[in-house]
Amino acid sequence: MQKHTDREYESELETLRERVLLMGATVEQLIGAALDAFERRDVALAQQTIENDDQIDHLEVEIDRLCLRILALRQPVASDLRFITMSLKLVTDLERSGDLAVNVSERVVELGSFPSMPAHELICRMGSLAQGMLRDALDAFVTGDALKAQAVAERDNSVDALYEQLFPELGAIMRADPESVESATRLQSIGKYVERLADHATNIAEMVVFMVRGQDVRHGFEVARVGRR
Amino acid sequence: MQKHTDREYESELETLRERVLLMGATVEQLIGAALDAFERRDVALAQQTIENDDQIDHLEVEIDRLCLRILALRQPVASDLRFITMSLKLVTDLERSGDLAVNVSERVVELGSFPSMPAHELICRMGSLAQGMLRDALDAFVTGDALKAQAVAERDNSVDALYEQLFPELGAIMRADPESVESATRLQSIGKYVERLADHATNIAEMVVFMVRGQDVRHGFEVARVGRR
Repeated sequence: MQKHTDREYESELETLRERVLLMGATVEQLIGAALDAFERRDVALAQQTIENDDQIDHLEVEIDRLCLRILALRQPVASDLRFITMSLKLVTDLERSGDLAVNVSERVVELGSFPSMPAHELICRMGSLAQGMLRDALDAFVTGDALKAQAVAERDNSVDALYEQLFPELGAIMRADPESVESATRLQSIGKYVERLADHATNIAEMVVFMVRGQDVRHGFEVARVGRR
Repeated sequence: MQKHTDREYESELETLRERVLLMGATVEQLIGAALDAFERRDVALAQQTIENDDQIDHLEVEIDRLCLRILALRQPVASDLRFITMSLKLVTDLERSGDLAVNVSERVVELGSFPSMPAHELICRMGSLAQGMLRDALDAFVTGDALKAQAVAERDNSVDALYEQLFPELGAIMRADPESVESATRLQSIGKYVERLADHATNIAEMVVFMVRGQDVRHGFEVARVGRR
């Protein structure tokens, strides 16, 4: 009987892991499409992306429910408990990343075609960095690789550095050509969304470190292991 | 013996509730100060605010730890379980709201003094709406008032409506006077931060509804109660 329950418990955990991975993959895809649409000024692709985040919202609700169910019916401890509580938090970051992908796409639709400019390239570079960070954070989650996760968190600085270049860049364009204000402010928004995408990837990476090591690396504090007393 | 454990458990839950409330009050105060600094163009107050969010970061880590501890050592079910998992998620929104307050203050410092304009008033109005939403969401959390929480979530639309007025407003200013680009883009950023503050308050409010009713109101789905089977 105990064995049977153990197997059920294992399979619930496995289902949870699969759903989180599916949600991660779906969000990655949405972000990839939104950034592609931006890079290629592809309004049709952007439009498609906007309509595509329903599945993400459903997955978030489903994962939350699964977590609560496991917490209520089993008594997970140690690494299982950290995995479940991490999943609860992680889906929030994933869901908001999906929203940001939609926001990027909305701005791409509004932009339509716009002239080539250094700011566009700058944002594309930020985008591919942020995408890489999310991919590696999710990889680290799958493989339980705390070192990889920690490296992701450190890459956030490169995105922030590019983001800081963006404002004077766009400011100069707007001052030189007041007609460019409409498109420049939209580029600014996209830059901001991408910067936040990188922040969400960082949050996820930090949670992976916590999940694997039982150590809290947020805000520079280290917190002793819990759930193993 | 059982009674003793029950009392300990109750006191752990009480501590958790207190810490969450303290964190909420601290974040509210920080946001209040940042918005005051913006309204009165008070660079000194803004500067003070920037240095004040360490306590919030500490509280987040402490609350997460408390939640994990209770989940690991007790077997909370039903409303207690929902309260604990909600706390785990809620602190993320509170912490990011604190970060946004700091971001507002940073832009206020950069702005220094700037001329009166309708956009400034518009953002102040958004700010007081967002502040009210957070206050009411936290009140609803304390009193377990799902109706009040639901009303908060509905108020997010008013903030979004003001936010939409902001962009054409600032766009017109920048086109008319290219010298205003520096300050107008900062006002735009502050508008965006305030809009996100309202989003976080909405998230918290939706979690309160879930905590009280065991119903998921996010994304327009209703999800059956869990943790009571």
